[in-house]
Amino acid sequence: MATEIKGLTKRSVNYSQWYNELVVKAELAEQADVRGCMVIRPYGYAIWEKIQSELDKQFKATGVQNAYFPLLIPKSFLSREAEHVEGFAKECAVVTHYRLKTNETHDGVVVDPNAKLEEELIIRPTSETIIWNTYKNWIKSYRDLPILCNQWCNVMRWEMRTRLFLRTSEFLWQEGHTAHATREEAEDRAKMMLKVYADFAEKYMAVPVIQGVKSETERFAGALDTYTIEAMMQDGKALQSGTSHFLGQNFGKAFDVTFLNKENKPEYAWATSWGVSTRLMGALIMTHSDDNGLVLPPRLAPLQVVIIPIWKTDEQLGLINDKVAKIKANLEAMGISVKYDNDDQKRPGFKFADYELKGVPVRVVIGARDLENGTAEIMRRDTLEKQTVSIEGIEDTVKTLLDDIQDNIYKKALDYRNEHIYECDNYDEFKEKIKEGGFFLCHWDGTAETEAKIKEETQATIRCVPYMFEQTPGTDMVSGKPSKYRVLIARAY
Amino acid sequence: MATEIKGLTKRSVNYSQWYNELVVKAELAEQADVRGCMVIRPYGYAIWEKIQSELDKQFKATGVQNAYFPLLIPKSFLSREAEHVEGFAKECAVVTHYRLKTNETHDGVVVDPNAKLEEELIIRPTSETIIWNTYKNWIKSYRDLPILCNQWCNVMRWEMRTRLFLRTSEFLWQEGHTAHATREEAEDRAKMMLKVYADFAEKYMAVPVIQGVKSETERFAGALDTYTIEAMMQDGKALQSGTSHFLGQNFGKAFDVTFLNKENKPEYAWATSWGVSTRLMGALIMTHSDDNGLVLPPRLAPLQVVIIPIWKTDEQLGLINDKVAKIKANLEAMGISVKYDNDDQKRPGFKFADYELKGVPVRVVIGARDLENGTAEIMRRDTLEKQTVSIEGIEDTVKTLLDDIQDNIYKKALDYRNEHIYECDNYDEFKEKIKEGGFFLCHWDGTAETEAKIKEETQATIRCVPYMFEQTPGTDMVSGKPSKYRVLIARAY
Repeated sequence: MATEIKGLTKRSVNYSQWYNELVVKAELAEQADVRGCMVIRPYGYAIWEKIQSELDKQFKATGVQNAYFPLLIPKSFLSREAEHVEGFAKECAVVTHYRLKTNETHDGVVVDPNAKLEEELIIRPTSETIIWNTYKNWIKSYRDLPILCNQWCNVMRWEMRTRLFLRTSEFLWQEGHTAHATREEAEDRAKMMLKVYADFAEKYMAVPVIQGVKSETERFAGALDTYTIEAMMQDGKALQSGTSHFLGQNFGKAFDVTFLNKENKPEYAWATSWGVSTRLMGALIMTHSDDNGLVLPPRLAPLQVVIIPIWKTDEQLGLINDKVAKIKANLEAMGISVKYDNDDQKRPGFKFADYELKGVPVRVVIGARDLENGTAEIMRRDTLEKQTVSIEGIEDTVKTLLDDIQDNIYKKALDYRNEHIYECDNYDEFKEKIKEGGFFLCHWDGTAETEAKIKEETQATIRCVPYMFEQTPGTDMVSGKPSKYRVLIARAY
Repeated sequence: MATEIKGLTKRSVNYSQWYNELVVKAELAEQADVRGCMVIRPYGYAIWEKIQSELDKQFKATGVQNAYFPLLIPKSFLSREAEHVEGFAKECAVVTHYRLKTNETHDGVVVDPNAKLEEELIIRPTSETIIWNTYKNWIKSYRDLPILCNQWCNVMRWEMRTRLFLRTSEFLWQEGHTAHATREEAEDRAKMMLKVYADFAEKYMAVPVIQGVKSETERFAGALDTYTIEAMMQDGKALQSGTSHFLGQNFGKAFDVTFLNKENKPEYAWATSWGVSTRLMGALIMTHSDDNGLVLPPRLAPLQVVIIPIWKTDEQLGLINDKVAKIKANLEAMGISVKYDNDDQKRPGFKFADYELKGVPVRVVIGARDLENGTAEIMRRDTLEKQTVSIEGIEDTVKTLLDDIQDNIYKKALDYRNEHIYECDNYDEFKEKIKEGGFFLCHWDGTAETEAKIKEETQATIRCVPYMFEQTPGTDMVSGKPSKYRVLIARAY
């Protein structure tokens, strides 16, 4: 596929446009010819596969098993849990018919009016209802609990304004759904999975996140508590990157899922659900990338090292090829992915720009003169710094550099975020400063009225009550009423 | 989940019922409360994950990359390729609306009539159309080719009569879609992927398959050639287990996908597509399993070894626990999956029956007296043979046994199939013998008329022109006309 490397809009000029262009130019994804849906291209999907593979391993380490539940949900299921239907059932794709037929002019197909479904089916926007309808048959006794299922699948929410990875009508995700015998066990599970998400975001994506609990207004529809991880993008806006819900007995009651406890008495099962989606791709891209293109954390980069030769004669190329074959084999034996690009149809300058755009963490250039000197030029994508290194032992140099890049981009993102977190006790000041982005730690009186006022006047929302800061009581900056703790407020994607 | 081990219908009594019961009792899958759809339970999904993981590795080894394309396809796309729409567009789920609203009595939701789509969307029954509509933008020059994409996803075909894994309205599969600059390269790719499927079926699933090419009648809608692998079930019926299609330039033309060749002249791109689905689960179950339950090939078994202690006193159990901990660690270090089931709430007899039902390839039983003697009892699931072995070196015994089971069940299935392949040149004899099942190698005049007559009179179909037998010309057993080769005829799932 011909990559067109044209000028990428600079972040400082238009951050939003920079993101939209980058996703397409780096061949991560593109808009499909189906409203609001995306095509995830091989390079983007390769990153998603790495995300999936690592998360899946971590879920399984906590005892979770994968399963698969139907795509389509009977319309009536959605109405069973009153809050859930309010939050979810509205903007979704509705299947009403099951057959097409050839049209009268025999040049196309039309919906067969005789093939109307008795009850419409909804493409899952999330699967609590169909899963709890199934769990009803699996759960009889406390001995059947806990049930710890996850599924990797597609879901659909009919979004009016879409952006690649951040908000699309169809997206890919995982949704975990657990059933427990006690409230405490369910609450612990909801918190445990948030921690899995937070650790993954920080250690693999190199994206620092703030963990906390949502306000009632921002909770998942049907949850008693929603835990969240919130990341800061380079424009100071928040991106909710994963959520874990303690659902209480709401779905147990809605779908009549009871079990006999140790005292042989029936009880409703306790539930959690938790998910991350292809939205993580958006967080990854926006946190680290720059005006030259993607910057990818080595742990999730589909290609970690590219080696590019520079030569004039076939003899020179032959010598470089031989030398690189050994380096490549050594690096691969160390578990490092490497591409050697000696395509003679593309100039080195074109290749440099292309791999920068694609965010390959380490670039090694070997020229004929380098070979004579026993050296190579290494560039690290995060800082664009070049250095000349010895070919002897270059494998260890590369390995160390990859680790260093992983650490450095995390640290850079962490520093940026910490520099843009402000304690604020004055609403006028807040209203002014929020325009520039950033996270604000403000006292809140706990009322939905104050929350709504802030949102209406500033487009900022309460992201969470963060765990990580020590809290002392104070005074709500808007209402002047007493406040138990500070909440994290930001404009968000 | 409480496993109910009740009598499984014997294969000899009712093969079809045996299969239906086994899938449910072994907790592989169950009917969902959505017409024609299934829930794949964790144990069934664990087998599917092993199938996916190995196939995915093999696809990638041939240069294939994964990607993701939209679930929904605009209705008009289906009409672009004339044969394709005939074969696929009819029985499918149609999305006509994108919003629900609260009903008048405020106790449910109804479809919002104001949210009707301008053009209906179809849930993909297969993705050639949406993918070739996308490839149009990816392909400009021969340098952009080949494109080798695969996606793992769900698809939907509105089936009237469904059976778990074998035929469900929604199923999981992978669909590969490649684009090439030459006819030859595309044909080679279609054949290459069939070989990947055949090797996987034989080496991993231990299911022998016959490779061949479909008759025109049985071809994929829109293909110039369909290659297939056909397996024989224990009732002598054929199960089509994977297909690979050479699509010629049909989709290139339908979606106007042209490239500039080396002579700088525009040409339509050449296509293939190929897929296997959760139907493979059906093939796996039906090929090997017996009246006691599943028999799984060790290479795809989620759990390869179960160790069960038999004890009277806590002291005895403690000693066995210690001994087993070492054996388990050793086996796991060899890459073998092991479960130690010392649950004191279930009797050994219950456990034996349960793990037999689940098809765990090797069972090790260690009792208090065994421990004194330094022995253990090993049972292999395929033959149910038990032997007493020394605990010293038991890890190697188990490893050898697993390999032996893998080989043995393949050989058993191969022998069974070979015993039930018949050359037949007399149509009356054929009509009689086909009632008992089996594969028939018969001369065919190559006409659709003869093919239709056989199907109508015997419910048997031409499965393929097989590669693997030496062919000589002859006389069609039905029409008496000349025939170029024998075809494989069977009743099929």
